[in-house]
Amino acid sequence: MTDNATMSIRQTEQFLHLYKPPAIDGNFKGKHIISVEQFHRQDLEALYAVSKTMRQRVMEHDRDLVRLCEGRLMASLFFEASTRTDMSFQAAMRRMGGSVVSASNGVQFSSVYKGENLADTVRAAGCYADIIVIRHPQIGSSYEAAYYLDRLNERITIPTAVISGGDGAGEHPTQALLDLFTIADLKNGPDNLTITLVGDLLYGRTVHSLVKLIGLWGAQNTTLCLVSPPSLRIPDTVLDFVQKHGITVHETTDLYEVLHQTDVIYWTRIQEERFARKADYEAISDNFIMTPAVLNQAKRDVILMHPLPRKHEMGTPHDHDILDQNPRSVYFQQMENGMFVRMALMAMVLGAV
Amino acid sequence: MTDNATMSIRQTEQFLHLYKPPAIDGNFKGKHIISVEQFHRQDLEALYAVSKTMRQRVMEHDRDLVRLCEGRLMASLFFEASTRTDMSFQAAMRRMGGSVVSASNGVQFSSVYKGENLADTVRAAGCYADIIVIRHPQIGSSYEAAYYLDRLNERITIPTAVISGGDGAGEHPTQALLDLFTIADLKNGPDNLTITLVGDLLYGRTVHSLVKLIGLWGAQNTTLCLVSPPSLRIPDTVLDFVQKHGITVHETTDLYEVLHQTDVIYWTRIQEERFARKADYEAISDNFIMTPAVLNQAKRDVILMHPLPRKHEMGTPHDHDILDQNPRSVYFQQMENGMFVRMALMAMVLGAV
Amino acid sequence: MTDNATMSIRQTEQFLHLYKPPAIDGNFKGKHIISVEQFHRQDLEALYAVSKTMRQRVMEHDRDLVRLCEGRLMASLFFEASTRTDMSFQAAMRRMGGSVVSASNGVQFSSVYKGENLADTVRAAGCYADIIVIRHPQIGSSYEAAYYLDRLNERITIPTAVISGGDGAGEHPTQALLDLFTIADLKNGPDNLTITLVGDLLYGRTVHSLVKLIGLWGAQNTTLCLVSPPSLRIPDTVLDFVQKHGITVHETTDLYEVLHQTDVIYWTRIQEERFARKADYEAISDNFIMTPAVLNQAKRDVILMHPLPRKHEMGTPHDHDILDQNPRSVYFQQMENGMFVRMALMAMVLGAV
Repeated sequence: MTDNATMSIRQTEQFLHLYKPPAIDGNFKGKHIISVEQFHRQDLEALYAVSKTMRQRVMEHDRDLVRLCEGRLMASLFFEASTRTDMSFQAAMRRMGGSVVSASNGVQFSSVYKGENLADTVRAAGCYADIIVIRHPQIGSSYEAAYYLDRLNERITIPTAVISGGDGAGEHPTQALLDLFTIADLKNGPDNLTITLVGDLLYGRTVHSLVKLIGLWGAQNTTLCLVSPPSLRIPDTVLDFVQKHGITVHETTDLYEVLHQTDVIYWTRIQEERFARKADYEAISDNFIMTPAVLNQAKRDVILMHPLPRKHEMGTPHDHDILDQNPRSVYFQQMENGMFVRMALMAMVLGAV
Repeated sequence: MTDNATMSIRQTEQFLHLYKPPAIDGNFKGKHIISVEQFHRQDLEALYAVSKTMRQRVMEHDRDLVRLCEGRLMASLFFEASTRTDMSFQAAMRRMGGSVVSASNGVQFSSVYKGENLADTVRAAGCYADIIVIRHPQIGSSYEAAYYLDRLNERITIPTAVISGGDGAGEHPTQALLDLFTIADLKNGPDNLTITLVGDLLYGRTVHSLVKLIGLWGAQNTTLCLVSPPSLRIPDTVLDFVQKHGITVHETTDLYEVLHQTDVIYWTRIQEERFARKADYEAISDNFIMTPAVLNQAKRDVILMHPLPRKHEMGTPHDHDILDQNPRSVYFQQMENGMFVRMALMAMVLGAV
Repeated sequence: MTDNATMSIRQTEQFLHLYKPPAIDGNFKGKHIISVEQFHRQDLEALYAVSKTMRQRVMEHDRDLVRLCEGRLMASLFFEASTRTDMSFQAAMRRMGGSVVSASNGVQFSSVYKGENLADTVRAAGCYADIIVIRHPQIGSSYEAAYYLDRLNERITIPTAVISGGDGAGEHPTQALLDLFTIADLKNGPDNLTITLVGDLLYGRTVHSLVKLIGLWGAQNTTLCLVSPPSLRIPDTVLDFVQKHGITVHETTDLYEVLHQTDVIYWTRIQEERFARKADYEAISDNFIMTPAVLNQAKRDVILMHPLPRKHEMGTPHDHDILDQNPRSVYFQQMENGMFVRMALMAMVLGAV
């Protein structure tokens, strides 16, 4: 990596300090959405009420739905591939009658170095669109986008809000929003539930955001069980955050210690690359593979969630097939919910509902 | 290729046996479209009647056309580049007011190995869209997609149908549908016609599907002339299929034996790579190059079709230019018809007409 | 580069002579837009009047705007990446209710050699769309597209017009159209102004087109100051063109000689690669870097334009930040204007206004 690239990464990360995301405080309109920390319980409840309406309207083929965001434009800036998130946002905007622009050849991470900087690419999209969805491998990238869009918005005709689709090791707020929606929708949670998160809790971005969001919800009578290898424990900052919000946390390396009392299983991958020696990984990997046999040991009404994509952490393709047929596996509903939550979020940011 | 990739290819091909495409039997709604063998004459006649209506409405700039599929979503999953087929499907959906989502960075064949398996990518799109168009280099891929979508559809809000845009050495059903439409439209066929197919008939996927479809139509008084080098004869399975349906077949290596009595010429490419020795290719290549001089030896009212893209099998760029100006060359109308047939097909699958 | 590629490039360039773009002469409908030389003052005034209406309608969220091009289809054929131009055209079409198709995997320059020729790819898009926007690295490519579309349009249902999004070292007409619109809009120009263009005026495609357009406008009492290193002077053909149209031209290597009397600064990049020796570049580079200090020496009401993207020719990222906050910097408005001008242009070509 050249010196320029190093500098660019450092600079992007600085925007985590330079820019403070606005609290929603009951009003989504025109706000950049780049962190779960912008939300409080009332905002989440409002968002989820609209999400359910969206689901209802899609299910009923409500033809007026396409009038909701007619004439509004979303730009999709995906500097790294994420087919699922990208398609989910696009589908969300289009089901509400809005349009989507994206570069025909894709935007490449490399182009940030070769061509122009992130701030200028974002402002180009900002000149044309009402909403930008950005996915970028650098932490702080969505903060940088928000910072520069605020300045641009003073100068041009159409103000533009940015929504993060994930920034590197940073946050992926809409994933956490849809995860919590699924828990609220299917289990009337997160209050009064035992929620067990399993896997790489140190680097797992989606886990951090979901844990924080459960804290911000102010969940009552909730127990979070965090199951990971010792070397991949959840960071203390996230742990402190959620405990300060009154959530009971139980850390363990043994799934079976908590499985029988769990209402929600949130399964994630452990990457072999996190371990210095292959033997270290193999020593623990068996404990972190979900299979039909494991699921059968859980409560009858447990729900099994996964942010997807999945690989060996759900066993073989044959295991996948069996798990998929189990009514306790809700990860496809969870994925579909992503579209409804993103519809609600964008409609509220655009002031269309 | 890794063991994993090999296994994956084997598995995808298995779905040719695991999944049986549903017969149309007069009702397109909600059906996956992955094989020409789903169609019978009545289905084709219904499809082509709607196709003509679509053409008429486009030609007249009928503004109500965009209400037909308003609010409906097509996902474009092209795991290999096929600009023509991809744009044709997209244009078809959009001219009916529907929307299209596709990954901003494209989906790559490689991602199936690196990231997640085909079944999961298809189900991701299935969570968001009403129709998935899939193009994939592995035979059986559209069958695999159909198999998993049937399971997914039981679990989520929006059921999704898949339409094949070509799967490797397998089928490319919509190409055959538009080819036959062109023969029906311009020559009132395929009944009472001599149809001559020329080129690589062994590996030529579009030829196999078209030949089968002519059989399924139950064409009356039709002669199929099959012109190829001996090493690239049409497979016996396809030959048996069409002969069982009562079509007269005449195989030859010599175009000039049949050219003068031909009503429809369907020209395709022979790839040099099919021959072990360059000399073997060169020995026959002259017989399989369409030029203005060759076309002039055919009947006055012959139509020259080609699935496109074309290369040396239509001579030099200069030859292309001259052929293109000849009214007997209908391959551009044929290509445009692709959009009208795909409009009709998708509207019928969505239950919109 | 293979012989084939060389031949292909030569052939594409030939279309500059084979095809003559039609003059607008007060009527945009159905015309290919591939050169600024198609425009005269009255056409530009008509275009800009509609552009202002478009801006007004977007600003007011006029919901009827999406009825303007409803049912119309634009194909985006970008054979080289140009995120900004691509998104601007897409946004323009979509804000008017039209749709956009582009290949999900992008179209690659290489595919022209590997797969099919440019003429066939363009005609494929022409079978499906009402407008094709083409960006291609070969000079003459948009002329070739226009040539073949004229022939295709005689054969198919939907006639298609091509709009150039830039062809290699050739023209980029819509960039010049939006540049002049910005000068007209913000400075009531180009009449009675001193307009200073700075940078690589030899290879700078956008500069050539803008200079020509100022000539075609028949600007009254306008002085063009052209500031470049001696080795990167504007070509004599462009100089002759504009002088024949009665514009006063002043060439210099010293910005400070003209800066104090300048009303419009049009800044462009000088690429180090243009110089045989690094030392030659470094000797002059300081004179061609815009910084906040330089801008402060200009008139209070000067406007600073730039076609973007920008790099070191606007100093460091920190310089960018300071320049961006200066009200005299109008390059973001200029970029946004691109969308409004492209809306107007496409609506007029489609006969929708």
